[in-house]
Order: sequence, then C-alpha cells, then structure tokens
Amino acid sequence: MDIKLYDLELSGNCYKVRLFLSLIERPYELIPVDFMSGAHKTRPLIDANPFGEIPILVDGNLTLRDSQAILVYLARKYGGEGWLPTEASNMAQVMEWLMVAENEVARGPNDARLHDKFGYKLDHALATANSARILDLMQAHLSNRKWLACGRPTIADVACFPYVALGHEGRVPVGQRPEVQAWIKRIKALPNFIAMPAI
Amino acid sequence: MDIKLYDLELSGNCYKVRLFLSLIERPYELIPVDFMSGAHKTRPLIDANPFGEIPILVDGNLTLRDSQAILVYLARKYGGEGWLPTEASNMAQVMEWLMVAENEVARGPNDARLHDKFGYKLDHALATANSARILDLMQAHLSNRKWLACGRPTIADVACFPYVALGHEGRVPVGQRPEVQAWIKRIKALPNFIAMPAI
Repeated sequence: MDIKLYDLELSGNCYKVRLFLSLIERPYELIPVDFMSGAHKTRPLIDANPFGEIPILVDGNLTLRDSQAILVYLARKYGGEGWLPTEASNMAQVMEWLMVAENEVARGPNDARLHDKFGYKLDHALATANSARILDLMQAHLSNRKWLACGRPTIADVACFPYVALGHEGRVPVGQRPEVQAWIKRIKALPNFIAMPAI
Repeated sequence: MDIKLYDLELSGNCYKVRLFLSLIERPYELIPVDFMSGAHKTRPLIDANPFGEIPILVDGNLTLRDSQAILVYLARKYGGEGWLPTEASNMAQVMEWLMVAENEVARGPNDARLHDKFGYKLDHALATANSARILDLMQAHLSNRKWLACGRPTIADVACFPYVALGHEGRVPVGQRPEVQAWIKRIKALPNFIAMPAI
C-alpha cells in the first residue's frame, strides 16, 4: 500500500486521519508509534517531521505533518469535491473550520485533555474557558445547519469532531448543547464511520 | 468596490490580508474598526463574525472570518495557481504552514505581542518558549529553501510573516537566525509589498 500513517491510537489528531481514510474507503498501512518512549522525538521520525509530532502521513515521495493539512491532502487527492470543494467561497468556508480545529479546539478541549489524561503542564482553567467559548459558538452555528460548512459533511466536520467528542476526558464535556450533540450523532451515523477509545 | 475589509491597522492578522490584497493588486474598501471601544464585540460586527474578532472580509454575499481562511479565499478567487496551488501535494504543503500560522505562530510571537503591547493576560514565558521553538524550526526549514512551500512565494509566507516580523514587539525577536532574517528580506522585496507599523 502506498499510504503509510504513523499513528497513536489515543491521539485525536491521528484518529481524525484514520476516520477520514475510513470515510473515503482508502486502504493504508498503519504504523503505531511508541509515543510514551518518545519515538516521535527521535530518529527516524524527527527527520520525517521536525516538529516532533504525530500523525505523519507518507504517500509515495510525499511526507506530511499536521492533521488538518493531511485532511486537505487526502480530500484533494482521493476524496473528490464533496469533502473539500475547490470553488473559492466553499473552500474558504471549510477552511474557517479547519482553522477552528487548529486554534480554538486545540486551545480548548484538546489542551484540557492533554492536561488531564497525559499530564501536560497546561493551564486547565484557561483551556476550560476556551472550551466553553468554542462549544457555545458551535452550538449557535449549528442551530440552523446540520454540518459546519457547505451544507454537507466535509473535512471541517472531521477536523473539529474528535476533540469535541473527547472533551469529557478533559472535564469539558459537550453538556447541555443539544445542537452539538445532534451534530456528533450525525457524524457517528456517516457511512464507514469508525470510533476510537472514549468516543 | 465589492471587497470590504474590516480592519485594525495594528493587527498582524488584518495586515496579512491587506498585504496579500496589495500583492495581488486587488482593490478593496478598508473599514477601520474601533477596536479599543470593542466595536468587534458588538452589533453589527458580532453578527458578521460571532467569534468577535477581526479581520472580517465581505465580498458580495460572502462574509468570512479568520485571516488564514480569508487568504485561501482570495488566493483561489483572485490570486491564480501560484499563491495557492490546487494540486493535492502542493496545496497540502501550503496548508502545513497556514496551520503553523494558526497554531505555533499564534501561540508564540502573536501571544507574546498581545501580552506586551495590548496587555492581554497571557503566559508570556510560555509564549517565549513557543516562539523560540517555531523560530528554530523555521530557521532549519529555510536553510535549504527560499520560501516556506512549493519553491515560490505562496500564502504560506504571507500567513507566517507578520507575527514573526513583529516578534520584537513581544520581546521575541528573530535574533540570530539568519535564514529567517533572509526570508523576511525576500518577502519585503516582493513586488507591491506594503508595510505596517513596526515592520
């Protein structure tokens, strides 16, 4: 198989790549990374991704870092127009939410979970406040739409879903936000959806 | 003019949009926002962008938030293939660095400057450490290339440039990183480059 994914089962960023590969029914080789011993911080993985992070995707001669960039690549290469439209205004609407995954969701439920579950030295109170803000914004955004962008499932949903759905592992559950809960259910009902531990 | 930009002169995120509009020679209407009195947190701007942030770009019926998403839109709509290629692997390489702008640069030199220049209650020591990390990664990345992605100037450079070049305003100057300094010079030499205060 051409596609290789360097992976950690408990990483929401790795999971979003596994989830999308499943949604588009693309076969790949999964290579588990010994995260606890820091394999991603040493050779050969640090040469593949100098940022010292996973996931890393390899497809032929191409090596990519960052889960959002990987989703863009897979959508463009294998996913068709539906998951990431190329028309400017539709692409930009997907991008708005890829950026939320990279920024607000990362600084919110992702940081909260890193603190609680993996012992990262992060400001949990700040991550909790950030989580409430982005979850409230998503609740409002989803009050008159089913999907984050373009009226259909896109990589925007795939990018934002994992850490929102894992929030309870960082004491920032979705809670009383019915539109976000309904959106999570819609994602879980997509054909070829796969889960991960705690989702 | 069709394009309207809700803007703050001292915002690096607004500046990157102004810079890109200049680089692609696209006329637009600039609408200054009274940031200090919180105009972006109240109507009508909070309706245009519920995140309560600027820049906001309006082009006809389309309203966009997030400077990186706005760059993607402008590049796709008006910039041609050069600034943002549509081929999957090239697009993904640009995306990797748009995500760095949204994450590592935001948590590094941008947060450091927000603390020092605008009095935001942020962890300046953490922002300083984050800044050193991403500046070192950029120094290494640029040691054998002139531009961040695709061997030519793209929106990746436009997205990462402002807060790196403004780092001295947050006590995180580029310092002894000659490849980053040379990259900044190359960007400043692009046709139709424009500056902002402190750059």
